[in-house]
This record gives sequence, C-alpha cells and structure tokens, in this order.
Amino acid sequence: MANSPTGDSMTERIVRVLETFTSERTVQSASEIGRRSGLPSSSAHRIVDDLIAAGLLDRDEDAQVRLGMRLWELALRGSSALRLRTAALPHMETVQAAIREHTQLAVREKDEALFIERLSHPDAGANITRIAGRLPLHASSSGLVLLAFAPAGVRSSVLTSPLRAVSPETVTDARALERVIAGIKRDGVAIAPGSIQSVSTGVAVPLRYEGEVVAALSVVLPRGADPEPAVAALRDAAAATERDLRRQRL
Amino acid sequence: MANSPTGDSMTERIVRVLETFTSERTVQSASEIGRRSGLPSSSAHRIVDDLIAAGLLDRDEDAQVRLGMRLWELALRGSSALRLRTAALPHMETVQAAIREHTQLAVREKDEALFIERLSHPDAGANITRIAGRLPLHASSSGLVLLAFAPAGVRSSVLTSPLRAVSPETVTDARALERVIAGIKRDGVAIAPGSIQSVSTGVAVPLRYEGEVVAALSVVLPRGADPEPAVAALRDAAAATERDLRRQRL
Repeated sequence: MANSPTGDSMTERIVRVLETFTSERTVQSASEIGRRSGLPSSSAHRIVDDLIAAGLLDRDEDAQVRLGMRLWELALRGSSALRLRTAALPHMETVQAAIREHTQLAVREKDEALFIERLSHPDAGANITRIAGRLPLHASSSGLVLLAFAPAGVRSSVLTSPLRAVSPETVTDARALERVIAGIKRDGVAIAPGSIQSVSTGVAVPLRYEGEVVAALSVVLPRGADPEPAVAALRDAAAATERDLRRQRL
Repeated sequence: MANSPTGDSMTERIVRVLETFTSERTVQSASEIGRRSGLPSSSAHRIVDDLIAAGLLDRDEDAQVRLGMRLWELALRGSSALRLRTAALPHMETVQAAIREHTQLAVREKDEALFIERLSHPDAGANITRIAGRLPLHASSSGLVLLAFAPAGVRSSVLTSPLRAVSPETVTDARALERVIAGIKRDGVAIAPGSIQSVSTGVAVPLRYEGEVVAALSVVLPRGADPEPAVAALRDAAAATERDLRRQRL
C-alpha cells in the first residue's frame, strides 16, 4: 500500500525529502526539494504537502519550505541524544573554560562519528566539525575512540573497507589503524595529530553508560599544544557526566 | 496510494508513531507503540519496521525501540532552531553565570511556547520547563512575550479561547491578559510572578531577527527576587544574540 512503483517505502521517500535540507540549505521551494530528492515531482509535492500538514515542514508566505519546529520537537523530546548532551553540557563548559578550545560530544552512527554538541570558544583554532555533522570513524579523535570501543563487527567492517584520507596525515592503512586502536584501548584516550586538519590535534576520551562506551568527549587543540591538560580535563568531565547519567538514567 | 482506510496520510501515521515517544517514555516495544499510537497493530508494526530500516528508530537486542540518531540528525541539521540556539547559547551562559538561575530559550509553536534550550544552575530553584517541552502562551513569561509580539490572528485566537490556569495565579481573564500584553509591548519585557509556579517569577525578553520576534529569552527567579538584574542581563544577551544572528543569518 505504501510502496511506490520503484519499491521504496513511504518512509524512505519522506527521509529523501528531509535529507535535501542541510546546514548549508535550510530553505527551499517544493520544486527544488522534488529535484534534489530524486523523487517524481508529483510524489515529492504530495509528500511536502503532507509533511507541512503534519507540521514537520513549514511553508512561509513566499512558498519557501523549511524544517518545522514540530519535527525538531518529535526528534528531541524522547531522544537519548538529548539526555546525553543535557548531562554532558555543564561538564563540557568546564572543559571549555579551562582549555579554551572547541569542545565536542559525538556518538557513533553506523560507521561515522555524529557530533551532537559543540561548544566553540571565540579565540579557538580551526575546526571543521559542526553540530549534527559527521566525520569518518577512523579519522577524527572522537571517531577513533568510538571505533576502538565499538562492537567487533563494526571494527572489522571499518578495517576491511577503504579508509578515506581526510587529510594527508589520516591513518589509512588498516594495520597501522589497528595499532592506533590498540593504543586507545590501552590508554583510554585518542590523540590524533593532523588526522583531520594539519593545524590541529584532536584529543578524545570515552564516555560510558552501563559499562558501554556511548559517546566520545573531545577538544581540538592547536597542533603544537601539550595535550595533557586537555586529557585531564576531558577525563574529569567524562567521569562527572557518567555520574550524572547514572543518577538520571539515559 | 498512501492513505489508510480511515483517510489519514502515511505521514500522519508516522507522526502518530513518533508521538508515542516522550521525555518520560524513551524506550518501548513495537506492540506498545502500536497500542499507544491508536493505529491498527499490523499497520503500526509495518511503520515501525520501515522507520527502523530508515534509521529513524533503533531496535536493540531486547526488541526495545527508541528514537534513532538519524532522526535527530535530519531534524537538526538544517533547522533554524539549531542556528538560533547556537547563536544564543554563549550569551545564555553569560546570563546564567551572572544570575545563577535557570536560563531558557523558547519559540512559538502554534499556541504554545516550545523550549529549545535550557541551562540549569545546580543551585537554582523550581522550574517545570524542559528542552522540547511546551507551556501555554498565556502562562509562562516566555509565552507571554511570544504572544505579545505574535501576529494579530494568533493573539485574537488565544484571547478568545478558554485560558487554562497552570497555577492559581495564571492570568485567565481575557481582558486582564490584554492589559498584560499591552504592558509587555510597552516595556519590552514580561515579568510573570507565580503564573506557572507560586514560588517562582518568570522574566522574559523578546529576541528579534529581521524585525520580527523569533524567540523569547528568559530566566526563572525565586518569587521574591528583584527582577532588574535579570532584565538587564537578558536584554544584553538578546542584543548580543541578535547581532550574531545578523552576522551568520538564521
């Protein structure tokens, strides 16, 4: 009933419509959405109308369409991402006050690190991550922590796939990456100089809930900086967040 | 094609499934989702399966279902709520550091105030708002600001509807509410003692973008506190956020 002639479900078509909105493209016409979603125009227009009727999209007086507050509310209200960032935020602020560099919280979403919170310091250096942005697991320090503590199946799948170089220093050799992972498991911290941008070193620690690593807490330091103060601040923040998560439950 | 025998669209049915997740209920079985959504069981199970296939829901090894990170990502990535809170967050932190009480950011969603960010101070007093929570426009200080500066049609619709008392002191008389609104428009601030909880006074100011009020910035003070320092801190934060919004665009 809900399937199109091409066999994709209505849900998939709705996702394709929502996927046309990005951090660089927050406002579109229904025709642009249709074209970018790759759906037949009549189907795209009907889905846009349905999504507007349900409040998941909004259309303004100029017929421009944007994501609706109702979608934001439904996605956040019952989400563990919101609970995680609510628990972590005060402790991320402590890290940022001490280290004065970008401070981030990331979770694993399949084979990528998804950044769910980021505090930016006005004086801080380069950083290409953004909230709701992604980076490959093998490249960012957050991703490396999430990879090191991921289920074995995820790790072997990443290690046997082509490893894309985000920067010239990204570790793209599977054997070398295995050694990096072993070091992170041993030390409980990932220090990744230049693996995303040559001017920066990412430092990330795991954040555990009920014995499992559920997130990575990280800062982005200028390349030459001593990582030790950041490691200590991140470990304190992770321990404090874990304590708050146990109290309020994820 | 996408309509059920009862005439609701597939989008509406997906929304009904997502609506069963709340801040108090983040994990459910597919059968519970079916029952709570009011959809026929077979239809609910198929929608849950489709949503899991699309990553909008996740099912764990115990067959428990929760909101997926993909939904969170799609809802936030291109949303003006995220841009608004990213612009406001550093200035909300300044307010919180000065006033040391709950600091909040709310937008109008139809006839309610929807809270999109909240910073809590460990020593702060009572507060029933939460992120992605709602309060009636006529009751909270944030809602009163959003109501005062809403389009005339929204105002008259609220003023001619029954006004629910959230606390014994909520203004529920339309004439009295009109006077409150006139005062907010004149002073550019809402001070609402006891209208949500008798122990607290909400203080809220408007936040403008391109000449329109797009949000309210508020703090919750203990009932007897002098509101003036909070009003001054909120006005400074609103001005700084407006300046940053103009620079980065909403």
